[in-house]
Amino acid sequence: MTSRKPQLRIGLIGTGFMGKTHVFGFAAASRVFDLPYDIVLHSVADRTDELAVAAARGLGFAKSSGDWRRLVADGEIDVIDITTPNALHKEIALAAISAGKHVYCEKPLTAWASDAREMADAAEAAGVKTQVGFNYLCNPMMALARDLIASGELGEIRLYRGIHAEDYMMDPASPFTFRHDPAGGGALADIGSHALATAEYLLGPIARVMGDCVTVYDRRPDGHGGFRAVEVDDVGRAFLRFTNGASGSIEASWISTGRKMQHDFEIHGTKGALFFTQERFNELHFYSMADAAGRRGFRRIEAGPDHDPYGRFCVAPGHQLGFNDLKTIEVARFLDCLAGKRPEPFNFRAGARVQALVEAIHDSSRRSQWVEIP
Amino acid sequence: MTSRKPQLRIGLIGTGFMGKTHVFGFAAASRVFDLPYDIVLHSVADRTDELAVAAARGLGFAKSSGDWRRLVADGEIDVIDITTPNALHKEIALAAISAGKHVYCEKPLTAWASDAREMADAAEAAGVKTQVGFNYLCNPMMALARDLIASGELGEIRLYRGIHAEDYMMDPASPFTFRHDPAGGGALADIGSHALATAEYLLGPIARVMGDCVTVYDRRPDGHGGFRAVEVDDVGRAFLRFTNGASGSIEASWISTGRKMQHDFEIHGTKGALFFTQERFNELHFYSMADAAGRRGFRRIEAGPDHDPYGRFCVAPGHQLGFNDLKTIEVARFLDCLAGKRPEPFNFRAGARVQALVEAIHDSSRRSQWVEIP
Amino acid sequence: MTSRKPQLRIGLIGTGFMGKTHVFGFAAASRVFDLPYDIVLHSVADRTDELAVAAARGLGFAKSSGDWRRLVADGEIDVIDITTPNALHKEIALAAISAGKHVYCEKPLTAWASDAREMADAAEAAGVKTQVGFNYLCNPMMALARDLIASGELGEIRLYRGIHAEDYMMDPASPFTFRHDPAGGGALADIGSHALATAEYLLGPIARVMGDCVTVYDRRPDGHGGFRAVEVDDVGRAFLRFTNGASGSIEASWISTGRKMQHDFEIHGTKGALFFTQERFNELHFYSMADAAGRRGFRRIEAGPDHDPYGRFCVAPGHQLGFNDLKTIEVARFLDCLAGKRPEPFNFRAGARVQALVEAIHDSSRRSQWVEIP
Amino acid sequence: MTSRKPQLRIGLIGTGFMGKTHVFGFAAASRVFDLPYDIVLHSVADRTDELAVAAARGLGFAKSSGDWRRLVADGEIDVIDITTPNALHKEIALAAISAGKHVYCEKPLTAWASDAREMADAAEAAGVKTQVGFNYLCNPMMALARDLIASGELGEIRLYRGIHAEDYMMDPASPFTFRHDPAGGGALADIGSHALATAEYLLGPIARVMGDCVTVYDRRPDGHGGFRAVEVDDVGRAFLRFTNGASGSIEASWISTGRKMQHDFEIHGTKGALFFTQERFNELHFYSMADAAGRRGFRRIEAGPDHDPYGRFCVAPGHQLGFNDLKTIEVARFLDCLAGKRPEPFNFRAGARVQALVEAIHDSSRRSQWVEIP
Repeated sequence: MTSRKPQLRIGLIGTGFMGKTHVFGFAAASRVFDLPYDIVLHSVADRTDELAVAAARGLGFAKSSGDWRRLVADGEIDVIDITTPNALHKEIALAAISAGKHVYCEKPLTAWASDAREMADAAEAAGVKTQVGFNYLCNPMMALARDLIASGELGEIRLYRGIHAEDYMMDPASPFTFRHDPAGGGALADIGSHALATAEYLLGPIARVMGDCVTVYDRRPDGHGGFRAVEVDDVGRAFLRFTNGASGSIEASWISTGRKMQHDFEIHGTKGALFFTQERFNELHFYSMADAAGRRGFRRIEAGPDHDPYGRFCVAPGHQLGFNDLKTIEVARFLDCLAGKRPEPFNFRAGARVQALVEAIHDSSRRSQWVEIP
Repeated sequence: MTSRKPQLRIGLIGTGFMGKTHVFGFAAASRVFDLPYDIVLHSVADRTDELAVAAARGLGFAKSSGDWRRLVADGEIDVIDITTPNALHKEIALAAISAGKHVYCEKPLTAWASDAREMADAAEAAGVKTQVGFNYLCNPMMALARDLIASGELGEIRLYRGIHAEDYMMDPASPFTFRHDPAGGGALADIGSHALATAEYLLGPIARVMGDCVTVYDRRPDGHGGFRAVEVDDVGRAFLRFTNGASGSIEASWISTGRKMQHDFEIHGTKGALFFTQERFNELHFYSMADAAGRRGFRRIEAGPDHDPYGRFCVAPGHQLGFNDLKTIEVARFLDCLAGKRPEPFNFRAGARVQALVEAIHDSSRRSQWVEIP
Repeated sequence: MTSRKPQLRIGLIGTGFMGKTHVFGFAAASRVFDLPYDIVLHSVADRTDELAVAAARGLGFAKSSGDWRRLVADGEIDVIDITTPNALHKEIALAAISAGKHVYCEKPLTAWASDAREMADAAEAAGVKTQVGFNYLCNPMMALARDLIASGELGEIRLYRGIHAEDYMMDPASPFTFRHDPAGGGALADIGSHALATAEYLLGPIARVMGDCVTVYDRRPDGHGGFRAVEVDDVGRAFLRFTNGASGSIEASWISTGRKMQHDFEIHGTKGALFFTQERFNELHFYSMADAAGRRGFRRIEAGPDHDPYGRFCVAPGHQLGFNDLKTIEVARFLDCLAGKRPEPFNFRAGARVQALVEAIHDSSRRSQWVEIP
Repeated sequence: MTSRKPQLRIGLIGTGFMGKTHVFGFAAASRVFDLPYDIVLHSVADRTDELAVAAARGLGFAKSSGDWRRLVADGEIDVIDITTPNALHKEIALAAISAGKHVYCEKPLTAWASDAREMADAAEAAGVKTQVGFNYLCNPMMALARDLIASGELGEIRLYRGIHAEDYMMDPASPFTFRHDPAGGGALADIGSHALATAEYLLGPIARVMGDCVTVYDRRPDGHGGFRAVEVDDVGRAFLRFTNGASGSIEASWISTGRKMQHDFEIHGTKGALFFTQERFNELHFYSMADAAGRRGFRRIEAGPDHDPYGRFCVAPGHQLGFNDLKTIEVARFLDCLAGKRPEPFNFRAGARVQALVEAIHDSSRRSQWVEIP
């Protein structure tokens, strides 16, 4: 396929589930959006040459390597896309930044906020663009929520309540995994990070937190007939103060029996309110005091072409985007940002910010004290 | 309790479940509303003197009789309230009307529209006031729906869809009852009458109908080890044409497994729409094209003091009325009508109208032809 | 109305909105339930003789007095029913208890837990029965929730989330009222008390709390053209630890724009989950791991005769109780308790408990420390 | 990209919105599913050579032609994919079938059932495989609904109610389009066809129908300052009898203000019930009499990996598929069918069947008589 668009050559490092999802996002974005670049699947790296060759064939990359450093050093590559296990994120990202590459990295960025800040500092110093994969923020209804706040239709924001609850760790017999590792693990870090990212996306910076993190199951099967101690939280809660004066709370849990995607928020302002649940993420519920008395109520707004970029996917309202479509939007946003058409959507600085919030809540919970966010 | 209000002396005929409900409504209405009358429970009639004495004691009536004609003849009584089996409605009502009493009668008014018309004619000729117990129409949200239509907020009405579905006859082993009697029985007569009353309450007269009535279980246990043939419908449907030009449909079913109170309607106009379900009857869902593009959606309006007479029951919105409260409103409306403060809310003429619609649908179904409503 | 039942003679003190509601509850309960007593509206007290005479006439009491002490001293009265302003609750209740009367008192019992404990101690020492008006707990669906927990159908309870949010104080121009008085005022005391009562009703005792109380509007119009400083919370939050090992949170707010009755809870156990909102209080949502894989989901259970005492109000399921019906149930429970047919449902001891929780959360919030509940 | 899979070479005819959607489906399906073929975008045809060249470049096809007959004649092409205006479907499809190609064609298959039958006859005679794009049937929750019926979990099916309502023609000022042409136009043909396809997918063949088709706006702007008469229905309703003995109804409307995707069904059997709305198409509501008394209710089942092929898109439940994902599933099903791994999912015979139902309803409505389906 030839065109006049400049090429954007991708080097993918990591070929697991998220690697495939990213490649799917690249493919879909180029069909759904009028992208500023032609995406070229240039190279893929895996742990060995053999695995990399197979991945290149399966995913459609032209070249491959068993050594990720080869991709970072390759002058033809424009973007390094990192979907490796979390522990490798920092080293790869810093190397890529040094080599002047733009970097797209899956969440969570790192286990520790200090590492994430180091990465953000490096990217800013090098002048490269970055993106972390907080794809729920790519939902057109999330943008609508932010628009309704920014337009003043809710008045001054007073209250916020955020939740991210699922049940994938509810079974105490499910084994110890990297998600149970103190280095960045736990419900708060794993999915509470989404709740925190959403809270700041909508209301702006959180100023301080009071945390409440609970380990419900303090050991998990180690996969070898024994048990391994678990220190991370199964549920994490926090009271919040925003710099805009609003107060609120968030809660994260991975043992909430029956809940599969309860990423909810409710926001109350002086003139209106919003309610949202990711369980039905093509809807936003909006209450407006501007409606006539006796006719007020939460209005179920269904996503449609009025809510950009829904119309890219479907010309008719109410047909609904899917989870994978949010990833497609995420890819398109990064390319627009690389072309200078929009600011970085959720960059390493933002990723570091979320990690800092998670650490502050953990710290607060340990010390039973309010903790200021720097 | 003394006061300056005139007294309204009630003579109740029929002391079963509905009789008790009416007495409850009289008692509640006098506490909830500022009624134009002091209600006096004057006399009650039952099948024998002994039963009547017991009923008087239990329900709080001053006098009693084993012969309902004694109540009709009693010059002290202002209102005859009929909650007997349906087959007796006509004879009692006509006698009461002849004696110059106002008449309050449970639904269905009669088995046949011609009988109901005779009763309505008699009442009008005698100049007495009448009411039939279609209590769903007393819901403040139903009034709100009618106001939204009357105000033009929905524009011109184009479409109507009404349902009344429950499952109390879903078990083929449940025995033959008076509700299975061809004289006025069947799902359409029993609960479809509600759907028809609601349709005309909201959109005005139905001009013609095409019916589809189905007997799913053509026999029921007779209670003596045998079976009795069933001819009435378990489900009745109709296409509708309203005189205002709208088209629509209603459906009634008493074999709709899992549905307990699916009395729903959906109305589409040129400027807006309404959705309602009796399953959540303190809510009305309103869609308005007057809302800004991108912010439109069905608005869940919760009942509150803005929706008269909700405020009589509770000063705070969202607290919700119950089923029995609708009966209380019905009683109050009749008293207001007797005092000349409002027109008859749902009188014998309206009750006859509903019977005529039911008969027209049955007739249409039998003949597979559209039937004009006189 | 005569019967063989013993009489229960009521002395009502306080004739405002809640006084009327109680009288309505007495009247309705005697018609809905088969009560163990004939309720006699014996005497009513108001601030002056004239007001009391008018109240007696309006509410149907036989006698009246401008001095509540006359009722307490009247040997014919069995129950003192207190619906006065909160500040008078303690003095009247202690006098009534001294006189050997049973006491039914509106919520909140007192401004301070120590006062409430004194009242509970006195009642227990005197052997009289007491009840505080937490009527949301009288909902049949609340009982169903407790049954599902007690039966083990949810497994071991791990998580709790409770909310009570309304918007009746959202307008900063709404004036200072007794609800803004530091002695027992604020959102947490006013409606958070409901959230706390529900939490303990369902999960048992709370062991410790961490509070977060926020005054959003620190002054309110004083009604004389000036302003009065407000110290009480507009929103109160708390992290919770239950003695059964579960953790959770509650939130109370009276500035939640658009919310009229968001008294919600969500409970997660090892085998199932519950979700409830008072906005639709005739429904309970139940998730069970016992359902087959691929067929699990939150089940919307509609209230019906299976859920006692719903059947007392209506023989058919799905017809829905209203807010006032919960008061009727509350009255009936107290009478059953007085007749020895059931334990005290929500007595002064329970009322004192709720006050203690409110105070502990306030205290915790001030000190930013976890506070143990005695 | 090389692999051992056989190639499947696509010839696409029609490059408008649906053409792009199909190409997107081909691309996505090969990444989401383990397809039996490598899809090769071989050739594309458009109205002129120039347009075709541009389309090939934009959509990624290797070759192009301004004459669709060249593709039909090309021996290298395995599948002809038709997304042209409806009027061309028949001629192209018959030519493709004659040439021994498999044919994938957008809905509606043709304007008239007799044409569709001719196409189905030809395909069967030639032994080629066909598919029509009824993509709502590709929803995993639709398959779950069918499984619940087939497994007997609903018992014997008694009642069906189907709706497909949108509002894209609600504005009388929206101009006359091909959808208003009597040859296959109208709400019933355009979207009622979905309601009919769903009804038969779930309950099996419809035996007879009674129709009610209404033209609400009998003229539309012709785009040249005048008006053009409209004869097709804006709303089409039908009573239904299924060969399994159930009765039911469907309704189609494109003037239902506020409704964007109200493709709903409700099914009642002797042991359970289902409710579904395409507005929230990742959910199915299931009521089972097998649940214990007092714990029954409609269960909101959320789509997840238990519901094949959801797991191909996402490993976690509750994340939700989007509208375009249904097209991806449709493509995969056709390839599986071509590989002999499953029967034809919705072939020309099925497409002809839907057209026959639409025509029967139109015919019935005109004649006001029940019409048997052959």
